[in-house]
Amino acid sequence: MKLVIAVVQDKDSNRLLNALVEKDFRATKLASTGGFLKAGNTTFLIGVEDAKIPHLLEIIKQNCESRDQLVAPVSPLGGSADSYVPYPVEVQVGGATVFVLPVEQFVQY
Amino acid sequence: MKLVIAVVQDKDSNRLLNALVEKDFRATKLASTGGFLKAGNTTFLIGVEDAKIPHLLEIIKQNCESRDQLVAPVSPLGGSADSYVPYPVEVQVGGATVFVLPVEQFVQY
Amino acid sequence: MKLVIAVVQDKDSNRLLNALVEKDFRATKLASTGGFLKAGNTTFLIGVEDAKIPHLLEIIKQNCESRDQLVAPVSPLGGSADSYVPYPVEVQVGGATVFVLPVEQFVQY
Ligand code: NI
Ligand code: NI
Ligand code: NI
Repeated sequence: MKLVIAVVQDKDSNRLLNALVEKDFRATKLASTGGFLKAGNTTFLIGVEDAKIPHLLEIIKQNCESRDQLVAPVSPLGGSADSYVPYPVEVQVGGATVFVLPVEQFVQY
Repeated sequence: MKLVIAVVQDKDSNRLLNALVEKDFRATKLASTGGFLKAGNTTFLIGVEDAKIPHLLEIIKQNCESRDQLVAPVSPLGGSADSYVPYPVEVQVGGATVFVLPVEQFVQY
Repeated sequence: MKLVIAVVQDKDSNRLLNALVEKDFRATKLASTGGFLKAGNTTFLIGVEDAKIPHLLEIIKQNCESRDQLVAPVSPLGGSADSYVPYPVEVQVGGATVFVLPVEQFVQY
C-alpha cells in the first residue's frame, strides 16, 4: 500500500477525479491554494496498492500533464497599447506534482 | 513518531476531535471533499509516538466505525410513487480510512 | 527527496510562504483548522531535496517560532471588573509542528 499525494491545477481536478472514480481508485480532495503550480490548485490523497502505482501515474499524467494552450487576445482596457498583442498567445496550463509515500499500516473501519 | 492521516465523515469529525483532545492526542483538521467515503468528509493529521498507535486506532474506530442507521421515510415529492418506501430504511454511515506513515524527523519550534 | 508537512499559525503563514518562495522552495498551502496549535492554522506541503532540509527547517523556525507577545489591555466590557488587568500581558503566539516524510517516488508532469 502507498499513499499518493498529487497537487494539480483546479481546472484539471474534476476531470482527474472522474477518471480515478471510473478506474476504482479511491481519492480524497483537499482544498489548497498557491504553491507548486501557479494558479489555484487541488491536492489529492489516493490510497493505492503497490501494483497499481504505474496505472495511477498514467491516469494523473493523461489528465493533468503540463501543456500549452492558446489564449485569445484581450483588448487593452486600462493597459498600455504598447503591450497589446492582437493575436492569440500560448500559455502553459496544467501540470502535476506527485509524491508516492510509503505506508506502514493501512486500516479501514 | 508516526504521522497518522485519517479520512472520516463530517458527521463524526467533531466527536473524534473531542475524543482526541480529551486523550491528549494532537490533531489538525483539513477540509476535504468527496472521495474515500460517500458524503462530505474531513481529513485529520495526527502526530503520534509509536507506542500510542494502538490506542489512537481504537479511538478512531470507536468514534467513526461504519454502521447502519435507520432513516425515516421521506414523502415522494416529485419522485415516482412506485419507488416510495413507507417505512424506515437502513443506510450505512460513518467509516474511516487510516494511513500510518513513517516519519524521518519530527521538530517543533 | 522528502515531503515536509508543516503546521503553522495563520498569522505566520504568509510570511513563511514569502520566505519559501524567495528561497525557491516549492510549497502548497492547505486550509486547516484547530489542532496542533491553539489558533487557526495552515498546513504546508513542501517537496524538498534531502540536502536542503536543514535550510528549510531554519526558514520555518525563523518565521514561525513560538514567542511571547505583549497584548494591550482590553477594557472589561461585559466582563467582571475583578478580572480586569490594566496593563499589557504576554501571550504565546506562533509555533510550528514539522514532519519530514520519506518519499519513495517523486514525479512531475
Ligand atoms: Ni490505463
Ligand atoms: Ni483506550
Ligand atoms: Ni539560510
